[in-house]
Amino acid sequence: MKTTQLLIPTQKEAPNDAQIISHQLMIRAGLISKLASGLYSYLPMGVRILKKVESIVREEMDKAGSQEVLMPVTQPAELWQESGRWQEYGPELLRFNDRHGREFCMGPTHEEVITHLAAQYIRSYKQLPMSFYQVQTKFRDEIRPRFGVMRSREFIMKDAYSFHLDQASLQQTYDLMHQTYCKIFDRLGLDYRPVLADSGSIGGDASHEFHVLADSGEDEICFSNESDYAANIEKVAFSKQEVTCHAQAVEESVLTKKKTSIEQVSEFLNVAPSQCIKTLIIKTSEGLKALALRGDHELNEIKAHNLFGEFELASDEEIKSLGLKKGFIGVKGLSIELIVDYSASVVCDFVCGANEWDQHLTGANWQGVEFSEADLRNAVAGDDSPDGKGQLIIKRGIEVGHIFQLGDKYSKAMNSNVIGESGKAVTTTMGCYGIGVTRVIAAAIEQNYDDRGIIFPEAIAPFQVVIVPINYNKSTRVKTLADNLYQQCLEAGIEVLLDNRKERAGIMFADSELLGIPHRMVLSDTHADNGNIEYKARNQSDKLEVSYDDALAFIQEKLAE
Amino acid sequence: MKTTQLLIPTQKEAPNDAQIISHQLMIRAGLISKLASGLYSYLPMGVRILKKVESIVREEMDKAGSQEVLMPVTQPAELWQESGRWQEYGPELLRFNDRHGREFCMGPTHEEVITHLAAQYIRSYKQLPMSFYQVQTKFRDEIRPRFGVMRSREFIMKDAYSFHLDQASLQQTYDLMHQTYCKIFDRLGLDYRPVLADSGSIGGDASHEFHVLADSGEDEICFSNESDYAANIEKVAFSKQEVTCHAQAVEESVLTKKKTSIEQVSEFLNVAPSQCIKTLIIKTSEGLKALALRGDHELNEIKAHNLFGEFELASDEEIKSLGLKKGFIGVKGLSIELIVDYSASVVCDFVCGANEWDQHLTGANWQGVEFSEADLRNAVAGDDSPDGKGQLIIKRGIEVGHIFQLGDKYSKAMNSNVIGESGKAVTTTMGCYGIGVTRVIAAAIEQNYDDRGIIFPEAIAPFQVVIVPINYNKSTRVKTLADNLYQQCLEAGIEVLLDNRKERAGIMFADSELLGIPHRMVLSDTHADNGNIEYKARNQSDKLEVSYDDALAFIQEKLAE
Repeated sequence: MKTTQLLIPTQKEAPNDAQIISHQLMIRAGLISKLASGLYSYLPMGVRILKKVESIVREEMDKAGSQEVLMPVTQPAELWQESGRWQEYGPELLRFNDRHGREFCMGPTHEEVITHLAAQYIRSYKQLPMSFYQVQTKFRDEIRPRFGVMRSREFIMKDAYSFHLDQASLQQTYDLMHQTYCKIFDRLGLDYRPVLADSGSIGGDASHEFHVLADSGEDEICFSNESDYAANIEKVAFSKQEVTCHAQAVEESVLTKKKTSIEQVSEFLNVAPSQCIKTLIIKTSEGLKALALRGDHELNEIKAHNLFGEFELASDEEIKSLGLKKGFIGVKGLSIELIVDYSASVVCDFVCGANEWDQHLTGANWQGVEFSEADLRNAVAGDDSPDGKGQLIIKRGIEVGHIFQLGDKYSKAMNSNVIGESGKAVTTTMGCYGIGVTRVIAAAIEQNYDDRGIIFPEAIAPFQVVIVPINYNKSTRVKTLADNLYQQCLEAGIEVLLDNRKERAGIMFADSELLGIPHRMVLSDTHADNGNIEYKARNQSDKLEVSYDDALAFIQEKLAE
Repeated sequence: MKTTQLLIPTQKEAPNDAQIISHQLMIRAGLISKLASGLYSYLPMGVRILKKVESIVREEMDKAGSQEVLMPVTQPAELWQESGRWQEYGPELLRFNDRHGREFCMGPTHEEVITHLAAQYIRSYKQLPMSFYQVQTKFRDEIRPRFGVMRSREFIMKDAYSFHLDQASLQQTYDLMHQTYCKIFDRLGLDYRPVLADSGSIGGDASHEFHVLADSGEDEICFSNESDYAANIEKVAFSKQEVTCHAQAVEESVLTKKKTSIEQVSEFLNVAPSQCIKTLIIKTSEGLKALALRGDHELNEIKAHNLFGEFELASDEEIKSLGLKKGFIGVKGLSIELIVDYSASVVCDFVCGANEWDQHLTGANWQGVEFSEADLRNAVAGDDSPDGKGQLIIKRGIEVGHIFQLGDKYSKAMNSNVIGESGKAVTTTMGCYGIGVTRVIAAAIEQNYDDRGIIFPEAIAPFQVVIVPINYNKSTRVKTLADNLYQQCLEAGIEVLLDNRKERAGIMFADSELLGIPHRMVLSDTHADNGNIEYKARNQSDKLEVSYDDALAFIQEKLAE
C-alpha cells in the first residue's frame, strides 16, 4: 500500500497519561487512539498488527484440534448465579439491565456460557475430549484503567475451554495447549517463559502463565540458572530445610531505642538482615497468629492465604491486647500460635524483638520456643531452585497467556454431565486457556523498542518492508525506480509500504522507524547514480548498498531468514 | 475435517420460538445456539460460515481502498450528546453506568466514534477522501428480539464511513461502494437487488438498500418490468398526472347503511375500489387536515411525514368536532385543508362519502372542490414505473446492506473540519455503508432451502464437499477408499468433511442435507464393486455414478463451475 492511502497519524509527543513505553509508542505510531478511559480504537496500522496476531493464534489453535466458536459479549445474570460468580465477582464485572429490567453483564470471561453450551450439547463420553476457542471482545471495568491496551477495559482475548471425562485426559489436552502456546509465542517472535502460576480466583488445580520478559513487567518470575524450572514468584515453593548451624552465642537483651524496622536494627547492631527474625501478627478466622520470617524475606500472601484462609495484619489495638510492643515483637514468650518460615527456623544466633519497648534480643536461638513450620515467604534471587538444580534468577514479565486446570468447579455447578462408559452420568473435567491478544501487541513493544520507536518482530509488523524514495515527487527517475520496485515486491507477495508522501526524508525515516517496519529500502538519485538502493534493517544500525537489480532477491532472502 | 472432531448438534425439531425458516434451520443444523432472548452463540459450523462472509466482505472493502479499523463496543455518552442522539435514540440504545457512575452505551452504530476520530486526525483536504470500515459486534436492545439472528440484540456488522471535501467526492465513493456491495453480494451467491431507500433516522440525503429476495422478507420492494428501476415501496415517488377522463355522471346521494369501508361500499354499489375515493383525517402540529386517496391505495406514512411532520390519525372526537361522520367522510364541503393524492385527483365519476350518516355520493367529481395535490400513497403492483419505463412488480426482500449519504449531520455537530485548499476550514461531508454480516447468513438461508434443509451458496457453505462412507467402521475397503479420497481432497485444497461416525446412512445423508453442503460423495461396497462413487449436488435431485479414480477430478470440475 501507499502511505497516502492510509491514516497513520504519527506524533512526536506521547500523551501525559502514557506512563509505559508501549502505551507511548502505540499512540505515537498511530496504532491506537484513546476514546475514553480504558477504551481504545485500533487505527489502520493497529488493525494490521491485530489481524496478524489473531491469525497466528487461530492457526495454532486449529492445529491443536480446538473448534472455533463465537459467544456473545452480553451474558445473562442467571448463568453467573448458577456458577456463584454473580456475587463473588467484584465491581470489575460490569452489570447492567436491559430495557425490560433483566440483569446482564458484559463478559470478562466465558466459563459460564461455554459450560452451559457443553451441558446442552455434549452428552456422551464418546464426544470427549472436546475443546473450543473464540477470539472475542471482553470487558473488565478496571477501577484505574492504565498502560494503554495493557490494562484497558475493553480488550480482545483468545479464550479456550476443554471438556474431559477424567483428569488424565485433561492433562493430555493441557500439555497440548502448553505446547501450542509455545508455538504461538515462538511464531510471534517473543522472548517468553511459561511459568508455574497460582490459579487465583478462577479456581482449579494447576496452571501456567506465559510471560513476555520485559523490564517493565508487572510480575516477578523466577528461573533456575541450571534447569527448566520457572515459576511466578508467588508460586515458588520451598521445603523444610536441615539445620546446619549450631547455637553458639549467649542471648542478650540490648537497647535499640526507636529502631523498629529490620533495616534500622540490622544497621544499628551491624548484623545482616538474614540474621534477623521478624514477627508479624495476623488476624485469621481462627484468631490471631504470629508468623516469623527472616529479616530479608517477605511474606507471600498467597501461601498465607492457602494456609490460613482470609487474613489481615493485626491492628495496633490487637497487638496491644496481646501485651506485645509494635516494632519490638519477638518469637519468645508469645501467648498465641507461632508459625515459622522454613528458612527462618534454620537460623542460629539471630536477632529478634525482645517483646519489651526499645529492646531486641541478640544471640537468640529456637531452643525452648514452641512453634510449627511452614513455607511462608516469597523467593529472592539466589535462592536454591526448588527442583534442586541451581539457583534462582528473578526477572520481570508481562503475562500474555494463562492455562488452567479447572477441574469440576463449573461443570459441577452447571450440570455439564455426560453418560460415561458404564451408563452412569459423569461430571466433566475442564481446562481453560487464555491469550490476551491485544496485550500481546503491547508486550511485544515493551520487549522490542529503542529511542527511535518500535522494533516489531517480523511476524506482527504492520508491513514487512517500507520503500522510502527521496524526492519521489520531483525526480522522475526516483519515482520510476520506486514504483517499479514496489510493484516487484507486491507481485512477490511481500507486504510493502511505499512512502509516497511529499515529506522530507528525515520525517519519512522517523515515521518508518517509529512504526517498527523491519526492512527499509531507500531510493534516491545519489544511490541511483551507482545503480543502488540503500538497505537498513530496523534492528541493526548499519546500512548496506545493494544493487537495484538485486534488491528484490536481497529482500526476499532477508525475509526468509 | 472429520465429523467426530466437530460439534455439529443437529436436531429434528425446531424450537417453539423459531417462526421463520432460517431461524429453524440454523438451530436444527447446529449453526447457532440461543443463550438468551436475542443472544446467540455461533457453534463451530456457524463460525465457519461467518468467517467466509467476513472474509469476502473484507477483501472487497480492501479493494475499494477502505481502511480497516476497530472501534470499541462501549461508547461514552459524551459523544452521543454532541451528536444529539443520546436523547433522540430510543430505548434500543442500551445505556449503562460504569463503576464510577459515568454514562456509556453499547454501540448500535459508530457514526459518533468515527467522526470523533476524523475530527482528531483528518486535518487537511489533501487527506480526503478517506474511508474506514470495521467488522464488529453491535448491540441493539430490541423490544421483541425474534427471527433468530435476523433480529437479534447482539449482531455483527460491517460498518464503513467515508469523509469528503464535497458532495461530488462523496458521490464518487458512494458509487464505488454501490459497486463494491454488488460485488460482495454477487460473490456471496445471493439473488439481491439494490433499491432506492429512505434514509430514515440516520438522516442524510440519499440512500440505497440491498435486499436479498425472499418470500419471507419483511420489506416490499418495487421493480420495473422493463428497466433497472428498483426502490423500497416506501420510496417509490409518483408525479402529478394528467386528467384523461371526463365527468359524465350526475352526482347522487345514495343510502349505504352501515357500509363504512371501501370494500363494503364498492361491493354494495358494484363499483371498483379504484373508482372510490377515501378521506382520512390526520392531526398535525398545524391542526387537522384531510387526505384523499383512491380506494385501492394506501397512505405512505413516510411521504406524509415528510410533508406534514409528526402526525397521527385523528380521534373519533376530533372527527366529530368537525361535524364529520366516521365511515361516511367525503371530499365535499370540508372545513379543513384537503390534500388529494396525485392518483386520486385524476379520477372522474367517483364514489365518496356524503358527509352524512349512511350516505355516499356516486358520480362525484372534483369540480368546485378546493384542494391541493401531493404524492401520498404506496406503490401497488402494476403501477407505471416512475422512470416511465414499464410497470412495477412487487417482491419481498430482506435488507442486508444499506448505503447512505449523510451529508454534514455528524461532521458539523462534532467538528470534523479540514483545512481546505483556500486555507479556510471546511466541514467534511460523510457517507456511511453497512452490511449485516450475521443477517446475511439468515437471508441466504431464507432464499435457499428445501424441505430437507439448507442449500448454501458455495461461497459460504461450511464445507464444500462431504464424503459419506457407508459402513466406514465395518468395511475395510470402504474405509480405505474413503480415507484415501478424503486425503486427495485435502491435498487439493478442498474444504472437505469426512463423516466418520458410526451412524446409519440415512442419518448421515439427512445431516449433510440439513447443513446444506453443496457436494456429496457416497462410498459403499456396492458402489465399490463397480469401481464407482455416488455423487449428488445439494441443489439437484439426481445422483450420478462416477468412477472412483476420476472422483477428485470430477469434484474439482464441479467446484470450478
